[in-house]
Amino acid sequence: MDGMNGARAVLETLADGGVELCFTNPGTSEMHLVAALDEVPRIRGVLCLFEGGATGAADGYARMAERPAATLLHLGPGLGNGLANLHNARRAGTPVVNIVGDHASYHKSFDAPLESDIEAAAGTVSRWVRRCGGARDAGQDTADAIAAAGSTAQATGGVSTLILPADVCWSRGASAAPVPPGQTVGVDVDALDAAARVLSREGEHTVVLIGGNLMRRPGLEAASRIAAATGARILAEETPARQERGGGIPLVERLAYLGEKAAVQLAGARHLVLAGARSPVSFFAYPGQPSDLVPEGCAVHDLGGAPVALEELADMVAPGVRPITVPGRRPGLPSGALTAEKTAMIIGALLPEGAIVSDEAVTSGRWLPAATADCPPHDWLTLTGGAIGQGIPLATGAAIACPDRPVINLQADGSAMYTLQALWTQVREGLDVTTVIFSNASYAILGMELGRIGALPSANGQARSLLDLTGLDFVALAEGMGLPASRAATADDLAEHLGKALAEPGPHLIEAVVPPPSSFPN
Amino acid sequence: MDGMNGARAVLETLADGGVELCFTNPGTSEMHLVAALDEVPRIRGVLCLFEGGATGAADGYARMAERPAATLLHLGPGLGNGLANLHNARRAGTPVVNIVGDHASYHKSFDAPLESDIEAAAGTVSRWVRRCGGARDAGQDTADAIAAAGSTAQATGGVSTLILPADVCWSRGASAAPVPPGQTVGVDVDALDAAARVLSREGEHTVVLIGGNLMRRPGLEAASRIAAATGARILAEETPARQERGGGIPLVERLAYLGEKAAVQLAGARHLVLAGARSPVSFFAYPGQPSDLVPEGCAVHDLGGAPVALEELADMVAPGVRPITVPGRRPGLPSGALTAEKTAMIIGALLPEGAIVSDEAVTSGRWLPAATADCPPHDWLTLTGGAIGQGIPLATGAAIACPDRPVINLQADGSAMYTLQALWTQVREGLDVTTVIFSNASYAILGMELGRIGALPSANGQARSLLDLTGLDFVALAEGMGLPASRAATADDLAEHLGKALAEPGPHLIEAVVPPPSSFPN
Repeated sequence: MDGMNGARAVLETLADGGVELCFTNPGTSEMHLVAALDEVPRIRGVLCLFEGGATGAADGYARMAERPAATLLHLGPGLGNGLANLHNARRAGTPVVNIVGDHASYHKSFDAPLESDIEAAAGTVSRWVRRCGGARDAGQDTADAIAAAGSTAQATGGVSTLILPADVCWSRGASAAPVPPGQTVGVDVDALDAAARVLSREGEHTVVLIGGNLMRRPGLEAASRIAAATGARILAEETPARQERGGGIPLVERLAYLGEKAAVQLAGARHLVLAGARSPVSFFAYPGQPSDLVPEGCAVHDLGGAPVALEELADMVAPGVRPITVPGRRPGLPSGALTAEKTAMIIGALLPEGAIVSDEAVTSGRWLPAATADCPPHDWLTLTGGAIGQGIPLATGAAIACPDRPVINLQADGSAMYTLQALWTQVREGLDVTTVIFSNASYAILGMELGRIGALPSANGQARSLLDLTGLDFVALAEGMGLPASRAATADDLAEHLGKALAEPGPHLIEAVVPPPSSFPN
Repeated sequence: MDGMNGARAVLETLADGGVELCFTNPGTSEMHLVAALDEVPRIRGVLCLFEGGATGAADGYARMAERPAATLLHLGPGLGNGLANLHNARRAGTPVVNIVGDHASYHKSFDAPLESDIEAAAGTVSRWVRRCGGARDAGQDTADAIAAAGSTAQATGGVSTLILPADVCWSRGASAAPVPPGQTVGVDVDALDAAARVLSREGEHTVVLIGGNLMRRPGLEAASRIAAATGARILAEETPARQERGGGIPLVERLAYLGEKAAVQLAGARHLVLAGARSPVSFFAYPGQPSDLVPEGCAVHDLGGAPVALEELADMVAPGVRPITVPGRRPGLPSGALTAEKTAMIIGALLPEGAIVSDEAVTSGRWLPAATADCPPHDWLTLTGGAIGQGIPLATGAAIACPDRPVINLQADGSAMYTLQALWTQVREGLDVTTVIFSNASYAILGMELGRIGALPSANGQARSLLDLTGLDFVALAEGMGLPASRAATADDLAEHLGKALAEPGPHLIEAVVPPPSSFPN
């Protein structure tokens, strides 16, 4: 009995383990896996033109589908191209089964042109890395990779990287394996009691910082009840992987990007209760400014990783108290010359119920949170790891996970240019994604950062020139990938184009021409 | 005395050390370096929209300028985006001073969102990695990085990665440092004698395999003299970083991509003399085929890394013998429906004297070597490390190195989509690059590879679909970056468009619509 080859065992194990999507940009060393897709139609391969598109789409898919997708990448350089969005997935706590094909085991010592240290690169983004040693292990190693990536039963997932040598894939004697049960994180009762005591103290300002899975409705409602009952301030991590927002869902303010603004939000706190969030730190370091944002003298209490802990805490300190939601109104449609603020208002006015927003609007996005707070219920996905080039792939993966929901990608122009290729996959897959490019023709955030270090560049110097993105035509770029696209220079145009794009199925892109911000978000 | 800050010391040291270009896609942690560019105009910053464009351009620049450029990348994710083309630079033996900005030293322990293991990723492509420990070391560390990258006095260069924490850049007390002298590789006299003895033996078939710096005119002439005098067969490595070709320069056949074809080229050899080349190995492994391409019973003799060794060998075994060049004719201009073969003929007919060719045509390029063998003298740059996405950035860097020479980028469509953003830099810099896209709307090489493993995909299966690139419009994509662009579906159109593009300064793109190959190159 020959059994199946390693490639087929990998795919059968993925399918048995609930992994149904494989975002791929394969090469020669992955051809047996690609061929095996014809034998295992339970796994759907989604072609991406660049590996950063594949890894970002796997992240977006899993944030919405609540189970991992697989990737399939081509040796070290293919992994390299996918690293930035795997970094974002790692920071998002997204489960990803990251499969990297490699040369046949016996070929490695010959140092062929594509040979490189895959383990070293994979280790920078993965919680689990394994090289499969033979076809016989292919099923079990795949099952272990799925288990290591985590499931939604856990507080967070992560990237597990399985390296599959070509001879493992083409050799026989393999079989599928069941996925071992994942570990569930229990509630830390002592931490819960400590937090409850802190919240019950009068006159001591307490902040509850929530993040991760608690940015969904149950967690937000629990936090809101705690705030209503105890007067604690609720804040959210700066860059949630997925936040439920809109009508009927408690709204929570996110920590600011700039440390000095976050310090204002946290000022006076005597206690900081962490619920699914990490202790707050400054995104970047600046001369003379602190990295650690916990105020001096503030005690930190971590509830641990169990998503239900916050609900149990709410039942302890706010029994019978209802969460607070503030019904509001959508912004009206503005008119006249377009600005980033008006763009936000138009999005707030038109955002459909059930929308999924992939937000990589960077500086231009400062008005979005307020403008969309009272839209119908929707999900908001943010840039979790700071590695730009997430927005378009993330929207692509989210749309594949939720084919019946509209996806809106709010996208800065500079960061759009890292992984623009994912637009082609949106066309190929017929995805209902509307991309709005905030086109200000500059790396505006770097202008702000230059100003912050006191290095306002001279008018004719190189520094200023290096922030200038003049010359990109996103309508032509989108049409080059097969998308219907249009440009809006007035608010009226944008409202019209956005309304049409949302009404029509399939992908669309709108280039919203906006001036660069004169200063940074408050 | 405060001295200068670390950022300025880095730039002054680069400029003093002959590094004048910095290909960059910077972020917040690099703002002090960007600001310092205003103080050190001897270094020119070249903005790239994606890090793979920056690293590929640095490779192309150094292949032609014969000295390294610097890069400037943003933390681990920026390095990740640049890894694939650093991998190609490593395989090309190209010196690159790869500068990666990082968080301030004291900020790293806080595991801020962009924190990752830069050393681990850098180690996969670098011959030298160092993290600068303080402003006082910034000048010397930069000088050491330049020395480690190598110079053209050495046989080969490499990637040296210098990690610069933000506080190193903003702190004072730094000063520029001189670059320590590079090591030169001496001629291995014993190896030379052994090779001379082998070449003097009658009746024993000897192959001289050349590569690296020996693909320039002096090396090619020495090899040709040896062949003429001894009957040895000269072959070249499969993917030279830079080959001088054309009228008056000895032509050398390159090793084939496929192992079984390379085996035919090497068949019968009793001795293999390596001159600047590595011992030949199969690009990929296949079931039942050897990785090592050295024929059984063939002895391998390595001349070592000194570029002059081959000339000395020629003086020993071929004194007074002249190199052989075969004067030939350019192909005539074909007409009718366009094919990849006709595209090659048109390029052969029109290639200008002094052209620099960046060749990433992959399967469509099979006819290029023959069609261009008798063009006026030119340089041919190939994909050295197999990491696709090299062609457009490489052409960009080569054009910056040689502003008075025309650059022709022969580019497969699939691989164009990895680093298309570099077209924008060509526009911004006003570079005289003509890109010809071989547009066959498929990953044709993977179709060939699927066939080779006996997995010809079923007509309706996923495997076939995953090779299909239908839907890309390269004219629109190029226009979206600001390039004049046109499409050619007939040979007559292509000849006309190419002639015009070559006659006009500045970048152009021509989409040559060709059918996918029915089989792979012989």
